[in-house]
Amino acid sequence: MARVIVDVMLKPEILDPQGQAIARALPRLGFSGVSGVRQGKRFELELDGPADEAALSDVRKMAETLLANTVIEDFSIRVEE
Amino acid sequence: MARVIVDVMLKPEILDPQGQAIARALPRLGFSGVSGVRQGKRFELELDGPADEAALSDVRKMAETLLANTVIEDFSIRVEE
Repeated sequence: MARVIVDVMLKPEILDPQGQAIARALPRLGFSGVSGVRQGKRFELELDGPADEAALSDVRKMAETLLANTVIEDFSIRVEE
Repeated sequence: MARVIVDVMLKPEILDPQGQAIARALPRLGFSGVSGVRQGKRFELELDGPADEAALSDVRKMAETLLANTVIEDFSIRVEE
């Protein structure tokens, strides 16, 4: 049993209207000191077995196929202790 | 300039239909070995100043006010190097 985290974020060159809306809302709510916000997705995958090389290679394929749209999104994979 | 990450996930006792849909889609796509998927949100905040205690306390308030619905969601904050 292992838990793998897949973080999916829009590529830096892609406009992020959700993040911009949050960044614009912060001053109205009385918060200062934030110059930018980007919003993305986070997936927690519970694996049946250990997070070995084969399992992580599978997770990479899942991310490319299903979790991220690699035309506009980048993803990163890490194992959670 | 510092980057702070806010991860927002549904509380464990709250049903996650998005995650369940992904978990059910994986076998159809030929992937096995994943027993569960939870989907959440990830926010990247660019701070004007350093990620000191005052700034992180502000980020915590932003998360509670704007980024997470603390009735059904948990959040965690970390500073990215």
